[in-house]
Amino acid sequence: MNMAGHQIINRSFPLIDSREKVLGQYQYISDLRLPGMLWGQVVRSPYPHARIKKIDGSKAMRVPGVRAMITSPDTPVTRCGPFIPDWEILAREKVTFIGQEVAAVAAVDPEAAMEAVRLVEVEYEELPAVFDMEKAMEPGAPLIHEEKKDNIAYTFDVDQGNVEKAFEESDFIREETFYTSSAFHAYLEPNGSITSYDPISGHYTLWVATQVPYKAWLLYSQALGIDRSKLRLIQAPMGGAFGGKFESNFHLVNLCLSKKAGQPVRLVNSLAEEFVTAPLRVSMKIHLKIGIKREGTITAREAEVIGDNGARTNYGPATLMTACYRVDNLYRIFNTRAKGSLVYTNNVPKGAMRGFGNPQMILAVESLLDMLAEDAGLDPGELRLKNTFKNGDVTVHGWVIGSCGLDECIKKAKEASGWEVKRNKRLPEKEKPRGIGMACCNHVSGYRPILREFDGSSALVRVGPDGKVTVFTGEVDIGQGYKTVAAQCAAEELGVPLEWVDVAPVDSQTSVLGIGSLASRGTFMGGSAVKKAAVDVRAKIVRAAEKVLDRKPGSLQITQGVIVDASSEEIIGSFKEIMAKLTNAQAGQPFLGVGHYVPDTVFPDPQTKYGNPSPAYSFAAHVAEVEVDTETGQVEVINYVAANDLGKAINPLMANGQLEGGALMGIGWALTENLIVRDGRIAYTNLLDYKIPTFADMVRVVPILVEAEDPKGPYGAKSLGEPAFNPVAAAVCNAIYNAVGVRVTRLPVLPETLLQAIRARDRGEEGR
Amino acid sequence: MNMAGHQIINRSFPLIDSREKVLGQYQYISDLRLPGMLWGQVVRSPYPHARIKKIDGSKAMRVPGVRAMITSPDTPVTRCGPFIPDWEILAREKVTFIGQEVAAVAAVDPEAAMEAVRLVEVEYEELPAVFDMEKAMEPGAPLIHEEKKDNIAYTFDVDQGNVEKAFEESDFIREETFYTSSAFHAYLEPNGSITSYDPISGHYTLWVATQVPYKAWLLYSQALGIDRSKLRLIQAPMGGAFGGKFESNFHLVNLCLSKKAGQPVRLVNSLAEEFVTAPLRVSMKIHLKIGIKREGTITAREAEVIGDNGARTNYGPATLMTACYRVDNLYRIFNTRAKGSLVYTNNVPKGAMRGFGNPQMILAVESLLDMLAEDAGLDPGELRLKNTFKNGDVTVHGWVIGSCGLDECIKKAKEASGWEVKRNKRLPEKEKPRGIGMACCNHVSGYRPILREFDGSSALVRVGPDGKVTVFTGEVDIGQGYKTVAAQCAAEELGVPLEWVDVAPVDSQTSVLGIGSLASRGTFMGGSAVKKAAVDVRAKIVRAAEKVLDRKPGSLQITQGVIVDASSEEIIGSFKEIMAKLTNAQAGQPFLGVGHYVPDTVFPDPQTKYGNPSPAYSFAAHVAEVEVDTETGQVEVINYVAANDLGKAINPLMANGQLEGGALMGIGWALTENLIVRDGRIAYTNLLDYKIPTFADMVRVVPILVEAEDPKGPYGAKSLGEPAFNPVAAAVCNAIYNAVGVRVTRLPVLPETLLQAIRARDRGEEGR
Repeated sequence: MNMAGHQIINRSFPLIDSREKVLGQYQYISDLRLPGMLWGQVVRSPYPHARIKKIDGSKAMRVPGVRAMITSPDTPVTRCGPFIPDWEILAREKVTFIGQEVAAVAAVDPEAAMEAVRLVEVEYEELPAVFDMEKAMEPGAPLIHEEKKDNIAYTFDVDQGNVEKAFEESDFIREETFYTSSAFHAYLEPNGSITSYDPISGHYTLWVATQVPYKAWLLYSQALGIDRSKLRLIQAPMGGAFGGKFESNFHLVNLCLSKKAGQPVRLVNSLAEEFVTAPLRVSMKIHLKIGIKREGTITAREAEVIGDNGARTNYGPATLMTACYRVDNLYRIFNTRAKGSLVYTNNVPKGAMRGFGNPQMILAVESLLDMLAEDAGLDPGELRLKNTFKNGDVTVHGWVIGSCGLDECIKKAKEASGWEVKRNKRLPEKEKPRGIGMACCNHVSGYRPILREFDGSSALVRVGPDGKVTVFTGEVDIGQGYKTVAAQCAAEELGVPLEWVDVAPVDSQTSVLGIGSLASRGTFMGGSAVKKAAVDVRAKIVRAAEKVLDRKPGSLQITQGVIVDASSEEIIGSFKEIMAKLTNAQAGQPFLGVGHYVPDTVFPDPQTKYGNPSPAYSFAAHVAEVEVDTETGQVEVINYVAANDLGKAINPLMANGQLEGGALMGIGWALTENLIVRDGRIAYTNLLDYKIPTFADMVRVVPILVEAEDPKGPYGAKSLGEPAFNPVAAAVCNAIYNAVGVRVTRLPVLPETLLQAIRARDRGEEGR
Repeated sequence: MNMAGHQIINRSFPLIDSREKVLGQYQYISDLRLPGMLWGQVVRSPYPHARIKKIDGSKAMRVPGVRAMITSPDTPVTRCGPFIPDWEILAREKVTFIGQEVAAVAAVDPEAAMEAVRLVEVEYEELPAVFDMEKAMEPGAPLIHEEKKDNIAYTFDVDQGNVEKAFEESDFIREETFYTSSAFHAYLEPNGSITSYDPISGHYTLWVATQVPYKAWLLYSQALGIDRSKLRLIQAPMGGAFGGKFESNFHLVNLCLSKKAGQPVRLVNSLAEEFVTAPLRVSMKIHLKIGIKREGTITAREAEVIGDNGARTNYGPATLMTACYRVDNLYRIFNTRAKGSLVYTNNVPKGAMRGFGNPQMILAVESLLDMLAEDAGLDPGELRLKNTFKNGDVTVHGWVIGSCGLDECIKKAKEASGWEVKRNKRLPEKEKPRGIGMACCNHVSGYRPILREFDGSSALVRVGPDGKVTVFTGEVDIGQGYKTVAAQCAAEELGVPLEWVDVAPVDSQTSVLGIGSLASRGTFMGGSAVKKAAVDVRAKIVRAAEKVLDRKPGSLQITQGVIVDASSEEIIGSFKEIMAKLTNAQAGQPFLGVGHYVPDTVFPDPQTKYGNPSPAYSFAAHVAEVEVDTETGQVEVINYVAANDLGKAINPLMANGQLEGGALMGIGWALTENLIVRDGRIAYTNLLDYKIPTFADMVRVVPILVEAEDPKGPYGAKSLGEPAFNPVAAAVCNAIYNAVGVRVTRLPVLPETLLQAIRARDRGEEGR
């Protein structure tokens, strides 16, 4: 019997809840029914900017089965929001985007609710609107929030080193403007919640699929003006999130509606509504300038970033901030300046989406580095290798790079993609030109500025009289497989088979409540806490077993579901049998282990932005190979290599899945997902017109797991979720350039625009 | 600020879940819906005893919407049962009672399921049946379980002291035969469950309202032949129980049905089905002989008890045992002999009901004591007072009477009922004669022989970042208010208002799993464990607060929702604020306290029955005053005094409610609840014909709480649930004798039979 090494960690298992998913057994929000539950529906603004003159619900209330209607007077006066308090639960004096919540009704069935919504009469007076973020910044632009002096929601400035001097000392400098598109998360399950309210105690209950249980709990209770003990938040299974299920005004509407109705209310978005509820990706204009030395060292970076916030603020500030300065911690850049502005427009609100602002800036930086490599006659991989961090380095912003596997990622990605052959010794030209391109990225493993109150995670591991293990973790499975990771950590530490472990849903009242699944923090933070809790309960069990079985302290060990004498390797008994004995001795009481992990992160200085915001950083180098149809402009990604330094793969099967999913999602953002917005109205709110890649579009992805074990990570692990996506669009664009010599600066790369650019190139114009 | 004394204990609060009940917010089993849930229905035997020749489900399976049907081959071959393995989940070769489960179907709606049940064709060959328990004991009686040699299910014998000699030394001896009736529990919510089965993992989930979660979990997993970790039992809110919701074959049928169907199945009894599912009260024939000395000391008791078990065994053995020997621990009886037999008949199964066998024997003993008091010219109260225990006494069976308030109960009940005036100085004769009668009882507070594995209870108390307290207790609220008791214990120890405390439902996988609510053990066992867990979490919180707030160890205290300096009484901060600080310091982790209580009870010797089975014993003396209409035989209870020694009233309001409910239920058993059974068929399975007392029949009950604090009880508390019921019928019967001189020996006392007896008395015949 091998007692050293890992039994469960670093091994492939299917998701522990794949059965529930495949058999349709999960009770998602839309499957839940409460006794007396009503169906809610939201009345939304048809105008991008308009004053509300009058709302008349009398006809709506006469629809048989309608039980309640709310307008702004039924909601708290105080505005709220996760960054900037610019949310009105229901629009008070005016609406600022198409789809904004104006009123809501609850009825005994969905038909009555929809009929009532149709009959709510709202009188509007249209106001001049602004949709272009640069126009919104001009003096005299329509003011979206009239109490503010302009349409600037948030700015971010950072300045380190001596940028002017560094540019002067550069051998090559390039600058360029990039335009990144917005995007829709397009997960399977739309946002929804069921809320109930007890008028006597003033307690609300909220069943919701949220990525950020603790933050949502705080925001909703503050917004409602109640003590947070009066809001019970129960996490439902989640059908995908990608940043679209953070705190949402939508659920506040539902909480107010159930209070008015005095009955539980179910409010679930249609797909069309989801387009205006889940904040879209922040579209950006990025002007970027980079200098390098002849041999490839980056001398300076300067960026100006403008981001579209839409009409109210979600996670736009964090997105802008990420775009502005994260990349300085990917490469050894010590002279850097960035200036960012997040701008209100009358577009639908934008916010968090996989990678926050990182993929946007990565597109710009990685494109420019390829241009500079060409200028300097360097291989793009070689140039990047000259600028990577080594373990223990501290970046210009104070980020402590505990582990960095970027060198290995670049080398392995090149090797696996046949880079040398394909890039340098050009193969005989095909009918359709092919090209190969690289892009790198970094990412955090959790992010200190997410929450003012605390960083880290906590967990509870319960082992019952039957030897069954239940993990309570505050972090949530948003579909990425966190439950499986948490179960693996517990099973590993306890020495039991994975199938004995279950993970309980998050509940603010009975379980632990974590910051949640964002900033690629689940495995690192949650895994660390679960590991500690499992170690704690294992120690308690072993101690009790030694006592009850009259064995020497320190003599017993749990491994592979049995309890053994550590020195003789004699099997003392099965874990299950012994758990029955031990719990009987304490009147049936299960064993409980607790653990919390508090990282030694530093909340960055508000002025200088200096401070180490994450306990660990992960890196990636991706290589895309594309084939371009020069007749149609169609780009096909024919090969994709994703080499990610994830510290340690807790579950290689799942890690590979992240890389495949990330690649496909990135290709969608780069090539097909075209969110057409005309005067603030999203033209097509369906998945036929908004084209996400489907299984038919599945690209062959070669996943490479680079395990630069992090000294702080659980089993050395660090993040993977976002870095699987961040560099994809940039790699594809660099490959397109390599194929057809056209530099892409605007996403998505639609066939018609690429074709235009190829023809312009053929005519000798600049390939743009 | 008063820091001494109790803030929450010994004070009246309404049930903490009265809101959910009154507003219809509780999700009982019949309210639950799972995705893909089917409706189950049971095919039941129309014969009391018949061989099954053939079951043909082909027509039933053709009903549109029918998804599955099971018969005995779909169930495990091994028989099961909580005492005697004589249950077949579905009848295999023959049926033994009307209503026995023969097959079951599951369909997409209840109508299809009912139609299918109608179409299942079962061919029976009738067998001779036996319904009278004495006839069933005769040689040559039809054998109900053919593998057994006779129809005796269980016997109980006890013999202590020298009964012959004691009777020889007696001055007065009386003997009499009593017949106690069966009864229906008649709670509001019938038995029901929802089950689901995962074919890949082999895991079952059972949503059920059970009184005995741990026992049910054990029995069902054993019966299904699965490791108990593969059965998850989730406790649903319960609409009453009284012994009718222990382990039930019914739920095993459902577990097998959902396995066959591959979908979740809901199986909920109709009221008519409930009459044959919830085991009825064991009807008994009791022949009892008691001797006393002239001054009133009881010399000896001898009893022969025969109980009707029905066709299969539930808690009949425990009921018979209780009837046979518990009363020897009520009075100082040191020469005692009892011989009990539990007999199989082709009646519907019988089992546990409030008081087990105690009320049956109490009727006999208390009637005989009144007869002996009359013989000796003693006041009935005086006779009883001569035989009571004092604190610290050990009974003939080894029961250690840690506290006994029976003397006080008798005295207070007499005083409050106007006993002296009404009993001795007869008031002027009314048109309808009135009478007053007394009866006493004892009871356990938990019972060691319930479970082979362990005694006691365990609990977990969680305090969240919001200061909200959640109690996890394995014992269950069956409607008696246990949740409120548990919450009070936690609030008291934590020093927070009661409304900050909630009690989580029992779940075999996430919470603790207790033996359950039987043997009047909830408050004693569960309360003790919750108290310990609350003390544990309080200590952890105080320690953390002292550390985080930089205060001297031992200096802080929690009281009335604030944290104070114990010496200066300075308020340091609100509990909620400080909980937020403390949990932030540990990454949001809530504080957890664990506690278990293991009583020093002794599993009685199987031969001698000697051993102390409960940590504490409670006592009661009840006085009923009745008015008898000698024209109609109608008895009206016009006044009822219930004096119960409950150690300490955790919640006087709830304790009074128990006494009122117990009195009314006892009056129903004594006077109106007439279960008419003809050849094994219950004639009327509805609540119009089976007359339980209604609010209109509510009797004025004077509740008297005698608090003989028990040294082991939580805050001195001991049991109340069953002792509120045990003596009622006996007190009513003694009052009837006092009113009209007719000694009742058969329950219920129907007007027509009482009238006959009165007329017989008038004719000078024996009043029987």
